[in-house]
Amino acid sequence: MSQSPLPNIPWEARPAGCAEVIWRYSANPIIPRDLIPSSNSIFNSAVVPFQDRFAGVFRCDNKKRDMNLNRGFSNDGISWHLDDQPIEWDYADPELSNFQYRYDPRVVWLEDRYYVTWCNGYHGPTIGIGYTYDFERFTFLENALLPFNRNGVLFPRRINGEYVMLSRPSDNGHTPFGDIYLSRSPDLVHWGRHRFVMGTRGGWESTKVGAGPVPIETDEGWLLFYHGVLTSCNGFVYSFGAALLDLEVPWKVIWRGSSYLLSPHTGYECTGDVPNVTFPCASLYDPPTGRIAIYYGCADTVTSLAFCQLQEVLEFLTSDS
Amino acid sequence: MSQSPLPNIPWEARPAGCAEVIWRYSANPIIPRDLIPSSNSIFNSAVVPFQDRFAGVFRCDNKKRDMNLNRGFSNDGISWHLDDQPIEWDYADPELSNFQYRYDPRVVWLEDRYYVTWCNGYHGPTIGIGYTYDFERFTFLENALLPFNRNGVLFPRRINGEYVMLSRPSDNGHTPFGDIYLSRSPDLVHWGRHRFVMGTRGGWESTKVGAGPVPIETDEGWLLFYHGVLTSCNGFVYSFGAALLDLEVPWKVIWRGSSYLLSPHTGYECTGDVPNVTFPCASLYDPPTGRIAIYYGCADTVTSLAFCQLQEVLEFLTSDS
Amino acid sequence: MSQSPLPNIPWEARPAGCAEVIWRYSANPIIPRDLIPSSNSIFNSAVVPFQDRFAGVFRCDNKKRDMNLNRGFSNDGISWHLDDQPIEWDYADPELSNFQYRYDPRVVWLEDRYYVTWCNGYHGPTIGIGYTYDFERFTFLENALLPFNRNGVLFPRRINGEYVMLSRPSDNGHTPFGDIYLSRSPDLVHWGRHRFVMGTRGGWESTKVGAGPVPIETDEGWLLFYHGVLTSCNGFVYSFGAALLDLEVPWKVIWRGSSYLLSPHTGYECTGDVPNVTFPCASLYDPPTGRIAIYYGCADTVTSLAFCQLQEVLEFLTSDS
Amino acid sequence: MSQSPLPNIPWEARPAGCAEVIWRYSANPIIPRDLIPSSNSIFNSAVVPFQDRFAGVFRCDNKKRDMNLNRGFSNDGISWHLDDQPIEWDYADPELSNFQYRYDPRVVWLEDRYYVTWCNGYHGPTIGIGYTYDFERFTFLENALLPFNRNGVLFPRRINGEYVMLSRPSDNGHTPFGDIYLSRSPDLVHWGRHRFVMGTRGGWESTKVGAGPVPIETDEGWLLFYHGVLTSCNGFVYSFGAALLDLEVPWKVIWRGSSYLLSPHTGYECTGDVPNVTFPCASLYDPPTGRIAIYYGCADTVTSLAFCQLQEVLEFLTSDS
Amino acid sequence: MSQSPLPNIPWEARPAGCAEVIWRYSANPIIPRDLIPSSNSIFNSAVVPFQDRFAGVFRCDNKKRDMNLNRGFSNDGISWHLDDQPIEWDYADPELSNFQYRYDPRVVWLEDRYYVTWCNGYHGPTIGIGYTYDFERFTFLENALLPFNRNGVLFPRRINGEYVMLSRPSDNGHTPFGDIYLSRSPDLVHWGRHRFVMGTRGGWESTKVGAGPVPIETDEGWLLFYHGVLTSCNGFVYSFGAALLDLEVPWKVIWRGSSYLLSPHTGYECTGDVPNVTFPCASLYDPPTGRIAIYYGCADTVTSLAFCQLQEVLEFLTSDS
Amino acid sequence: MSQSPLPNIPWEARPAGCAEVIWRYSANPIIPRDLIPSSNSIFNSAVVPFQDRFAGVFRCDNKKRDMNLNRGFSNDGISWHLDDQPIEWDYADPELSNFQYRYDPRVVWLEDRYYVTWCNGYHGPTIGIGYTYDFERFTFLENALLPFNRNGVLFPRRINGEYVMLSRPSDNGHTPFGDIYLSRSPDLVHWGRHRFVMGTRGGWESTKVGAGPVPIETDEGWLLFYHGVLTSCNGFVYSFGAALLDLEVPWKVIWRGSSYLLSPHTGYECTGDVPNVTFPCASLYDPPTGRIAIYYGCADTVTSLAFCQLQEVLEFLTSDS
Repeated sequence: MSQSPLPNIPWEARPAGCAEVIWRYSANPIIPRDLIPSSNSIFNSAVVPFQDRFAGVFRCDNKKRDMNLNRGFSNDGISWHLDDQPIEWDYADPELSNFQYRYDPRVVWLEDRYYVTWCNGYHGPTIGIGYTYDFERFTFLENALLPFNRNGVLFPRRINGEYVMLSRPSDNGHTPFGDIYLSRSPDLVHWGRHRFVMGTRGGWESTKVGAGPVPIETDEGWLLFYHGVLTSCNGFVYSFGAALLDLEVPWKVIWRGSSYLLSPHTGYECTGDVPNVTFPCASLYDPPTGRIAIYYGCADTVTSLAFCQLQEVLEFLTSDS
Repeated sequence: MSQSPLPNIPWEARPAGCAEVIWRYSANPIIPRDLIPSSNSIFNSAVVPFQDRFAGVFRCDNKKRDMNLNRGFSNDGISWHLDDQPIEWDYADPELSNFQYRYDPRVVWLEDRYYVTWCNGYHGPTIGIGYTYDFERFTFLENALLPFNRNGVLFPRRINGEYVMLSRPSDNGHTPFGDIYLSRSPDLVHWGRHRFVMGTRGGWESTKVGAGPVPIETDEGWLLFYHGVLTSCNGFVYSFGAALLDLEVPWKVIWRGSSYLLSPHTGYECTGDVPNVTFPCASLYDPPTGRIAIYYGCADTVTSLAFCQLQEVLEFLTSDS
Repeated sequence: MSQSPLPNIPWEARPAGCAEVIWRYSANPIIPRDLIPSSNSIFNSAVVPFQDRFAGVFRCDNKKRDMNLNRGFSNDGISWHLDDQPIEWDYADPELSNFQYRYDPRVVWLEDRYYVTWCNGYHGPTIGIGYTYDFERFTFLENALLPFNRNGVLFPRRINGEYVMLSRPSDNGHTPFGDIYLSRSPDLVHWGRHRFVMGTRGGWESTKVGAGPVPIETDEGWLLFYHGVLTSCNGFVYSFGAALLDLEVPWKVIWRGSSYLLSPHTGYECTGDVPNVTFPCASLYDPPTGRIAIYYGCADTVTSLAFCQLQEVLEFLTSDS
Repeated sequence: MSQSPLPNIPWEARPAGCAEVIWRYSANPIIPRDLIPSSNSIFNSAVVPFQDRFAGVFRCDNKKRDMNLNRGFSNDGISWHLDDQPIEWDYADPELSNFQYRYDPRVVWLEDRYYVTWCNGYHGPTIGIGYTYDFERFTFLENALLPFNRNGVLFPRRINGEYVMLSRPSDNGHTPFGDIYLSRSPDLVHWGRHRFVMGTRGGWESTKVGAGPVPIETDEGWLLFYHGVLTSCNGFVYSFGAALLDLEVPWKVIWRGSSYLLSPHTGYECTGDVPNVTFPCASLYDPPTGRIAIYYGCADTVTSLAFCQLQEVLEFLTSDS
Repeated sequence: MSQSPLPNIPWEARPAGCAEVIWRYSANPIIPRDLIPSSNSIFNSAVVPFQDRFAGVFRCDNKKRDMNLNRGFSNDGISWHLDDQPIEWDYADPELSNFQYRYDPRVVWLEDRYYVTWCNGYHGPTIGIGYTYDFERFTFLENALLPFNRNGVLFPRRINGEYVMLSRPSDNGHTPFGDIYLSRSPDLVHWGRHRFVMGTRGGWESTKVGAGPVPIETDEGWLLFYHGVLTSCNGFVYSFGAALLDLEVPWKVIWRGSSYLLSPHTGYECTGDVPNVTFPCASLYDPPTGRIAIYYGCADTVTSLAFCQLQEVLEFLTSDS
Repeated sequence: MSQSPLPNIPWEARPAGCAEVIWRYSANPIIPRDLIPSSNSIFNSAVVPFQDRFAGVFRCDNKKRDMNLNRGFSNDGISWHLDDQPIEWDYADPELSNFQYRYDPRVVWLEDRYYVTWCNGYHGPTIGIGYTYDFERFTFLENALLPFNRNGVLFPRRINGEYVMLSRPSDNGHTPFGDIYLSRSPDLVHWGRHRFVMGTRGGWESTKVGAGPVPIETDEGWLLFYHGVLTSCNGFVYSFGAALLDLEVPWKVIWRGSSYLLSPHTGYECTGDVPNVTFPCASLYDPPTGRIAIYYGCADTVTSLAFCQLQEVLEFLTSDS
């Protein structure tokens, strides 16, 4: 349990009268779709503390509707500067140089550097892994898994000596199914000993579920925010909820909330390129205060921020499981 | 023709400049999605006069996105108090105790009590029937029909000695077809002598149609408001219109409007959990004035109110059939 | 337990070396597709003992591929004479006179006459019920249920004072789902108190199941042969198996075989208008010997016969459940 | 190159801070859905200079959701007066008198009169051609092509002696594919020598593409605005971009922008009867100033206006191809 | 009415006991799938009298499952010699040189030469037209229509001065719909004045219909054999029937048989690459005797022959319409 | 290049007049569907030389239509004895003990033991790996990959120090897509460095392709027999062909035949539980003579044998690529 304090975590107190476990930032969305000239939309975004400020890897779909990853920095985690052009990746094997598309990144500090995982287009969507030491130079390692896969999320430390990753096997389209699995690796390149973690249930998570931000280590277990999808007669609705995974056997689910924690209610969540999407990809956590800030994509169009208290989330999980 | 006056019917005059047969209440939606702490949305709702005020059974989807029926009361039919927890049903047969889901209720005063019909989950959606004398205790009778069925609506009196119900046979998903049928019963438990009433036509009602509020008895026939669905490239659009059924042979359609009367135009109808839905489940009628107030769900998210005059609806039907 | 002996039941001993519970008649198919000039195919067929010979109602699709029911007689239950034209039905209500199609009949002796149930086209497939005293004059009663339904099968006596029918709710196409339900009636016209009987399971019965012949009353329970459907990449495969239902609570399944009893293996079962179909619609039973003869449609093209011993079927059920 | 100046072209300068090639009119939408009493929506609309003002043919879906074409006039191209009833067409062959539906018109001045092309319902959607000299009397010529086709757009002059039309072959539903082809005719009645022009590509135009307004003749080639469709998990998104076609071999694409020029971003584009649609059907061009005004349908509900400069579009094409 | 006698028409008398209007040749199939070394299958085949023998254009799918057209000759119309390699086409426009695929040919003597029509792959299936004078050199003219179209069949003479062609608009896959339309041309290159001829009906022709062989001119009208498709739960079933079209207004249907004339019943029709297909593409006719020989593809694998008498077909049409 | 001679390879000379590269055994099928009492079908089967005879792992679907793997032995490779009950697997982790289903095995001698790979049901189909030293005791190792995957085939030796496996990522149903990928492992448990090998092409392999038997090492490269699927209007057709992969860079395709080598032509290939399937899972090879015997499943029902000469296959590949 060695997570660092994060006193500069972005934060806003729960609004008066609000009884929700998670509440939205009052100035959402924090990143508009046109923050940079090239972008059509900026949404599922991965943010980490970096030096005394924040850095991130952002999904920026351009006006061709190409899906790309762009770098960004922020002093306060709320106001962001993003590069107008995508990240260029170094790679050892030229066969891997053709990134057909890149989307839905996660970033995690793991041992000695920042690892980035994302949905990488290599003859179909799969999980690409790369890293950076400084957010200046980025190196592509390998595709961890075979297509078709999405929502690959690394744990922030080895567990029982192995690297661990969550992912959601899928098909080559708008997959109408999806469960969360876990894979283990000695070297971040070869993966195996796969285990089923959790699948769909009724209601808001009846079509598919997928890991969201990098799990947060707590005394009780790994806190996982995850998205769930319901299929209405007019398409998918993406909400998100939470579960607690066993610290040592992380494919064991200890608690899992049966209600969603946040679902598309506001205008910026309900309308946009894909109506009715709230999709978390990153969180910040300040252990001394228990504050958690969650970055989530809205309607596949803009990026927003929501807040909660760790203790309240854990209470929710125990009472709503 | 023995319908009681309803002087306290909620009402607002047609706005200046409006030429529509049906007009919206200016303070719509009257029930927000979060009226009660547990709710994700409160929409397709059944209201009746009760003593000197109004009572209702409301579809309240909670934050698990479970579909439930909650009780509510109102003094003016506009401002509502709802229970935070669903109605508990008494039942004789424990095999029927597992309500997988309950949605889209209708309530009707029939002979000596209030009957509630709704889409009941019993190995698939079918039509559950229950009753209450006092909106305190609710008893579940039986599922009137086999799955897969939705939109079961009772007539407010026996016709030729039999109870009569409209319904819309469907499949086990987001049914892409649907016509209105009528069934008859000596005892509200066994149903037969089914007849076809009316099916889809072009335009706004080209995918499926289903009965809305309990039919209103008029000298000319039974006035039925019903919903119709059009399938655009981006999903279903639910509008509603009207038809007049024969008083004695209620599966005979006398008139049927070819235009819709109300279709999703406002923000609260066009965006929400299911964009572009206006779905009526209840109406109030004051014979002396001809006033009709219609409760309808909006975007499967909130509940709204619209108004019309009986005579104008009948004129619309004769001129637009 | 008052079933009559049937000494003239068609019969052929189990072939040497055969270890199956059910074996095919060596001269299958017994009814070729072109037995009568008008027919394209003659398959799902309902046979009963009648006087000292056998009578039946046969699905005869003609060369328009209209689906109809034709009458037939046989002295030995194997060699059949069928009318070239469909049965004409008397009916009380002219609204019911338009039989869009009629298929998959069952015939049962019930109290004082022969009842016929079939899939009847009335704005969609539903369960028509008619009767005959003499196989000369046939009277149509009513559609027992709303569309969309198929495989309506009556029990051969009242149970606890009520008529009882199995059916399989479906949709309006080649339904990819289907479970067996039970409905009850005081008068064969109004039906209610519906109960779920049994649904799909893995393997041969993973897509849908439906009742086959009229259940056979035994000391242990009602013996039900039923079809099950598996969906391969090249379409449906119809096999059939057996279950035993409680005598007094006939929606309770006592035993249910996990293996099929007969599946398409022969040329006349594997090729034809619908490859890979074996579909039982009738059985004959001789209590003194325990002999059962099953009539089943093959590839939606011809009619065949298979044999088994009641005791062996019951043993199969107890050992394979 | 003999296009007339159009000094009264509707125009509004690019807003300060806007870097887009195309910008929206600040008072969009210019035609509300209820401009005329009969309409549900008024959107994909064809406008031409007419005498000293503007005339147009407008898609007006009425409250039956019938699709029709209505005539309109405007003094400034922004404020419009539309007939409440659809255009009546003269026709020579009574077999062609049953217009099942009419939608998505284009109007072009060609030689001596105004030709109208539209998607015409004749046993499926195809391309109807008619003409008017005066916007008073309209004559239907013939269906140029067989069903199923949409988005038929005539060039404003003969090319190498032949009339030339673009179209997008489709199927009989919400076609999930679609490329642009060209056909040639000696007489506007018989069409042949069909050539493939351009198909789908990635991103915003990955599902289908179709010609928009009548091509604008420039020194460099025919400037074609065209729509492209992306399929998200929640349906189609219609954006539009541009291409330049060879003046003499107009099925040769010289340049084609890889980014869209306008995509649904505003409320009136993102919500309505079909969310996320921007669909251009007409443009006006003033050669002396290079000003182009584009009329486009929004969310299949209202009509809007956008502006650009020819030279900037051409520069975009050369730099973004 | 100037059709030539064809005394060498292949012929075999109706088998004893057969009451069908059309009967099969006893040595079917006449062309096995492996007649030539390169072929996977040889089926939908177009045969014409040529000099004192017979020539034909045959669909030969090779072992890549490429679809091609090969030339063949026969002395008796039964025993055939086919080229192992596909026909090479001359063409004027190199843009048309890329035949993506070619299948389902028809051949007709028209004025001064043999015209071949077929389903031609040009950015989708459409109707290619070519010609030959001598079955030695073949010239490709143009694609008559836009994609997506199949089953283009020319009439054997001009009608009212115009060339006339039947076709069946379709989509880009295994089209689940399809009606027959007629188009007219002054030059076999430009086509227009399209008219609807006939659509699907129930039973054997409920999914789609398409013209078969070149229509035979009779005193009563044009005799058209056409295929119809029924969709079972295990796929398409292709049968064929007949209709009579007006001599001068050939899109007017005078008679249309409601029964099929031939449907897959034999092993070589029910099994093969596509089970349950009988698909006629050519017929021979001897006016003095009224004999007609029909060539039809079986299971998309082999080619067979069937026979009938003109007078009996006409009688069938009058009695079965 | 150290493959052992296999003088007892099953063999039958090419029939007179046959010009095919691969020819069928004259007594096919060698294993009937009912070889053992429990089986519904025995088809996709993996055979290896074992001691002085042959052993194998066979897909035996039982009469529940459960999919299982059974062991078998044969003296001549043609006549087989199979266990009636499935193989029991030892396993270290009880979480992996629930084999939902097991099918389509391959067996390979690798270093010191026989490895078995198969499609293993672990929350979806994936690639299970196990091993046996003696065909008496079988040990389950792990699932090599995440669901959804099928057709996992190990190379018979390490390449550049790593174990290598081909597989075909898929979805959770009758996958309508599928390409062959390669994965590498240091330990047969963790897999990575995935590379795309080859995808679909036109004709017989237009829907999906998958590796068949264990690749055969030759001087020119790895000879891979693989299946390809074409989708007709009546379902999938499984043929098989061949490719040659680079010895050291085995995801590089040197040659790939454009024609199939064997496709369903015989009755036992065209009819059965899944019509039109030929699916190779094993081959035997005798280097001194170049003889290859291929075991392939037929119609998902029975097992057959085909023969070829290595040199002729290589010549085919060079001339047909």
